[in-house]
Amino acid sequence: MKELSIGGVPVSELADKYKTPLYVYDQKMIEDRIEEYLEHFKADGLSTEILYASKAFTCIHMLKIIKKKGLSLDTVSGGEIYTALKAGIDPKKIYFHGNNKSPEEIKFAIDSGIGTFIIDNKEEAEDIKRYMAGRDDKLDVMIRINPGIDAHTHKYIITANVDSKFGISMDEKDIIAETVKGLSSLDNISFSGFHIHIGSQIFEKDAFTAAIEKLCGFMKEMETEYGISCRAIDLGGGFGARYTDEDRPVPVKEMMDSILESLLRERKRHGLSFDKVMIEPGRSIVAEAGTTLYTVGYIKKTPHKKYIFVDGGMTDNIRPALYEAKYDADVANRMDEPKTDLVTVAGKCCESGDILIDGIDLQTAERGDILAVYTTGAYGYSMSMRYNQNGRPAVVFVKDGKDTEAVKRETYESMLINET
Amino acid sequence: MKELSIGGVPVSELADKYKTPLYVYDQKMIEDRIEEYLEHFKADGLSTEILYASKAFTCIHMLKIIKKKGLSLDTVSGGEIYTALKAGIDPKKIYFHGNNKSPEEIKFAIDSGIGTFIIDNKEEAEDIKRYMAGRDDKLDVMIRINPGIDAHTHKYIITANVDSKFGISMDEKDIIAETVKGLSSLDNISFSGFHIHIGSQIFEKDAFTAAIEKLCGFMKEMETEYGISCRAIDLGGGFGARYTDEDRPVPVKEMMDSILESLLRERKRHGLSFDKVMIEPGRSIVAEAGTTLYTVGYIKKTPHKKYIFVDGGMTDNIRPALYEAKYDADVANRMDEPKTDLVTVAGKCCESGDILIDGIDLQTAERGDILAVYTTGAYGYSMSMRYNQNGRPAVVFVKDGKDTEAVKRETYESMLINET
Repeated sequence: MKELSIGGVPVSELADKYKTPLYVYDQKMIEDRIEEYLEHFKADGLSTEILYASKAFTCIHMLKIIKKKGLSLDTVSGGEIYTALKAGIDPKKIYFHGNNKSPEEIKFAIDSGIGTFIIDNKEEAEDIKRYMAGRDDKLDVMIRINPGIDAHTHKYIITANVDSKFGISMDEKDIIAETVKGLSSLDNISFSGFHIHIGSQIFEKDAFTAAIEKLCGFMKEMETEYGISCRAIDLGGGFGARYTDEDRPVPVKEMMDSILESLLRERKRHGLSFDKVMIEPGRSIVAEAGTTLYTVGYIKKTPHKKYIFVDGGMTDNIRPALYEAKYDADVANRMDEPKTDLVTVAGKCCESGDILIDGIDLQTAERGDILAVYTTGAYGYSMSMRYNQNGRPAVVFVKDGKDTEAVKRETYESMLINET
Repeated sequence: MKELSIGGVPVSELADKYKTPLYVYDQKMIEDRIEEYLEHFKADGLSTEILYASKAFTCIHMLKIIKKKGLSLDTVSGGEIYTALKAGIDPKKIYFHGNNKSPEEIKFAIDSGIGTFIIDNKEEAEDIKRYMAGRDDKLDVMIRINPGIDAHTHKYIITANVDSKFGISMDEKDIIAETVKGLSSLDNISFSGFHIHIGSQIFEKDAFTAAIEKLCGFMKEMETEYGISCRAIDLGGGFGARYTDEDRPVPVKEMMDSILESLLRERKRHGLSFDKVMIEPGRSIVAEAGTTLYTVGYIKKTPHKKYIFVDGGMTDNIRPALYEAKYDADVANRMDEPKTDLVTVAGKCCESGDILIDGIDLQTAERGDILAVYTTGAYGYSMSMRYNQNGRPAVVFVKDGKDTEAVKRETYESMLINET
């Protein structure tokens, strides 16, 4: 029986050593994808910066890769900033997002020397001014604006989603101008530009083109009407990953070329002066590098279905239940057998919605086999829960035939450490 | 300004002492509801047993209440059993459910002296026989069957859901008989009867009546055709709780009366010999006793909406995002003010779906106010996650003006204890 290997290690070795369910990351895939971004997100006459969106998947080991590759970091909470600092990320390279940063988080971020705040709203700007007043250190700020473009998977809609909870609507130019001017009244706060984020799992270059056109038009108006100019723009993330054959992500080079070309064209057309652009890939860096290994337990035939039960489920991957997300899989110790057995892969939780894959052709599995579910590297571990008092799985990185445990499995005992 | 109190303690005191977000349980409400079940789930000529469904909410403090009240416990994993044992629950009063119990869990449960396994499928029965062979201790087993009734909220459907992942279909009588006979071949395994579970948030007495009729008919057939009789039946849980005014749970007395009346009638009609019945309330015991306290942060107006941002969200309550669950709330320090401000309550996660209540009339909130979201006692803490590296809130029980911290808040540091 042919067996799947990840990073040069047969999955049965990983399953034996760390038990299942297990999050396995192919470290080289992550590094290669980062290199691809670094290579292609470059243009003459424009400085570029890549921020890894840590909400997709964060742990110290992952952030050490980010550090080594020299990426910056998109964080969304005090907890993410704390983790980044523990991983040795330079605070100046940390960007702090979020629609409702708490006073404690703002103070913690400023005291930690965070480089840039992405300000979500006017009230937050006031808070930041209050905390920064009289300090010697400097802070860069950007403002998140809502361009009214909603891009998901294979379609996008302009002037949709104007009521998103994030950012200030692009139509509210007075409020935006007032916010920028207020921030600029302090010598130690430097407004560098605007941030947008148009969606997730975006498979359309045109969505970014439309966003860039809209953003640059808006920036021209801000310059003309309010005398506000930008040094930088942050286009956010949302670059798609391949979960199943239905997904066709745009190759990194093609997407970056398209984005940079649109940017340079629009900058010239409007005579804008920004000289820096940021993007925030998260899912597209880690999703495909992650595979979850499960052990096949009971196999059950109901009148119209055949179930393969695995030893994890919605606790380690909430995306099928939460978003009806689709996944591909293999019986990892039977890679050379035909995939002709139509099954439903279900988890062990006492919840009828705990179905990982509702209908997939797989190799005929037997109890004790290893099931590999692919593309679980983003929003798997980061959204994991302890429902049914199931401990969260371990996280292992594999590279060049060597495995490293990044996060230990939760045990019955460790789940109770906060109980008095 | 009039303020909400829980268990005799003003919420501002709880928020000051434990910070927010905070899960607060009114312990007396839990105890009273348990008493209500104990009082009304009684009938002449029928022994009754109430199993608390710990998946709704489990922690040692909660299980100590269960122990004190003398309830039995419905568990669904090794982790839940471990927690129950730590709380001092008598293992003989523990029932072990689940569609995919692992070999380790089965062994752990048997070695711990668990009273009853609710067997989900034929393969599990074989496993249990293998583990029990040659042992001196005894084990009770029940078999979960799928009656093909799907009851949720205000409707139920017979002959629906025959392909559920749980149990053996009632139509597969040969398999059920074979499983029972196989189990009964061991002297130390005692088959006591069948278990069914027909849904959740059930507001219809008729759904249980239909289930009882179907189950008793089935038991008669099993007796006549296979000579298999039962001492006990377990009707599962699913009793509804009130989240908003739209929900009208059947009062406990009315629901219990109806169930017991149907049972006695059907037992008599079919001449059955079972003399014990179990139910498994979880949500209906803890949901309404739980309130989540948040601090109001930024308040934002978009073109068509007004947002109230709170310092928690989908991380402490995934139900709105996962099930479109509805909740009621109050600005807890303005209880005497009119609820005339139409707002959307959103969380702090970087996720557009992180909306707790999409449209509710509230007292006009200001930053720093305390928002109380009601009926969060079930599937809130138990499904909580650390997404965005937001630590899980503390859990506090309040009774007679006294508060007890049952679970400590996760901190930036404690979230990293499993990282190497």
